[in-house]
Amino acid sequence: MAASRNLTWHQAAVSKKQRAALNKHKAALVWFTGLSGAGKSTIAQHLDARLFAAGIHSYVLDGDNVRHGLNADLGFSAADRRENIRRVGQVAKLFVDAGFIVSAAFISPFRGDRDIIRNLFGPDEFFEIQVKCSLEECQARDPKGLYQKALKGEISEFTGISSPYEPPLQPELVLDTNTLSVEPAVEKILKLLIAREIIPSRNF
Amino acid sequence: MAASRNLTWHQAAVSKKQRAALNKHKAALVWFTGLSGAGKSTIAQHLDARLFAAGIHSYVLDGDNVRHGLNADLGFSAADRRENIRRVGQVAKLFVDAGFIVSAAFISPFRGDRDIIRNLFGPDEFFEIQVKCSLEECQARDPKGLYQKALKGEISEFTGISSPYEPPLQPELVLDTNTLSVEPAVEKILKLLIAREIIPSRNF
Repeated sequence: MAASRNLTWHQAAVSKKQRAALNKHKAALVWFTGLSGAGKSTIAQHLDARLFAAGIHSYVLDGDNVRHGLNADLGFSAADRRENIRRVGQVAKLFVDAGFIVSAAFISPFRGDRDIIRNLFGPDEFFEIQVKCSLEECQARDPKGLYQKALKGEISEFTGISSPYEPPLQPELVLDTNTLSVEPAVEKILKLLIAREIIPSRNF
Repeated sequence: MAASRNLTWHQAAVSKKQRAALNKHKAALVWFTGLSGAGKSTIAQHLDARLFAAGIHSYVLDGDNVRHGLNADLGFSAADRRENIRRVGQVAKLFVDAGFIVSAAFISPFRGDRDIIRNLFGPDEFFEIQVKCSLEECQARDPKGLYQKALKGEISEFTGISSPYEPPLQPELVLDTNTLSVEPAVEKILKLLIAREIIPSRNF
C-alpha cells in the first residue's frame, strides 16, 4: 500500500475508553442505508437532535453534505460512489475514535461496500439500519425531484431505477418507513442503542 | 463541480453554537506545520491530553494516522500530498462543525495548501502554529530515520532535503523547538486559545 511507506503509527495520548468515560456514553456508527427518499437523512437528523438534547455527543455524516466538501472531487460513477462510501467509513472511524455516536445516512446500495465499513469497527460499534421503503412510495415522495430526472434519463446509474439496491442480509434494525413515521423510528434506534449499552437509559 | 449535481444541503438539526453551549467551549482547528522531526505530533498529542484532562473535547488528526485509513490510497507525489492535505482540511471542518478542538499535525510544506484550509474556517477558528526547528536539529533527531533515507536517495521529494518548505508568513504562533520543550510549547498554545476565548481559562 502506497501510504505504508515510512510511516510510524502515533499512539493517541487519549484512548477511546478515556473518551467514553468523559462523555459517559460509548461511541458507535449508526449506518442508514436505503433508497433515495426513504427517509435516511431525516431520521438521522432527528436521532442526532434527540441524542444532543440528552447530552450525548453525536454527529451526522450525510451523503449530500460530505459531497460538498471532502468528496467534492467525486462524481457518481460506480468507482466514485465506492470511494465516496469508503471515505465516509474512514471519517466515521475517526469520529468513533473521538467518542462520537455518528449517524451516517447514505444510499450505500452495495452490500460489499457496507461490509467493508462494518469490518472497520468492533461488534458493538456498528449498527446497520435498513431504512426500507417501497420504490413506489419513494418515487411518490421524490423530495428532490431526482426520480423524475432519473426516469427521464437525465441521471444515470440512479439507485432503484437504473442501478441496483442490495438490501442488508442481517441489519441490526429495519425501519419500514412506508408505515413508520420519524419519531417512532428514532425511538426504535434509541431503544437498540440502550439495549446494547451504547448510551445510558437514564438520559431518556 | 461533479458533486454539485442534484444535491440538496441538509441543514444540520443541531447548530455549531448549540454544540459549543453543550461543550462549554468553542471549536477550532489548530494546524501544526513544520519539518519532519520538528515536534508537531508530539506537541499535538500533549495538547490533546491537556485539553482532555480539562474536560474539553479535542482530537488529533495526524499525518501518519490519517494515511493508514482515509488517505491510504495516496502516495507522496506533489498531487497526492496536496490531496492528503485537502482531505484533512475537510475532515477537520467536520470535526470543528461537531464542536471539537482539532489538532492537525502535518508537514504541510506549501503555503497555498495551508491557505486553502485557512479559508475553510472563520477568523477565530483556525490557528496556524509554525513548529520551527532547524533542519540540522531535525536531522540530528531523525526519530523515524527518514532523513537518513532521504539523504541516501531512498525517499524522493522529502521536505527539507529534496522538496521545499514554505514557512507561514503570518502564523498565529511560532514555537521554536530548537530551544522550547514540549510542556512550555503546550502552555503557549493554551494561552493563545484562552486569549482568543476558544477555551475557558477556569479549566486550567
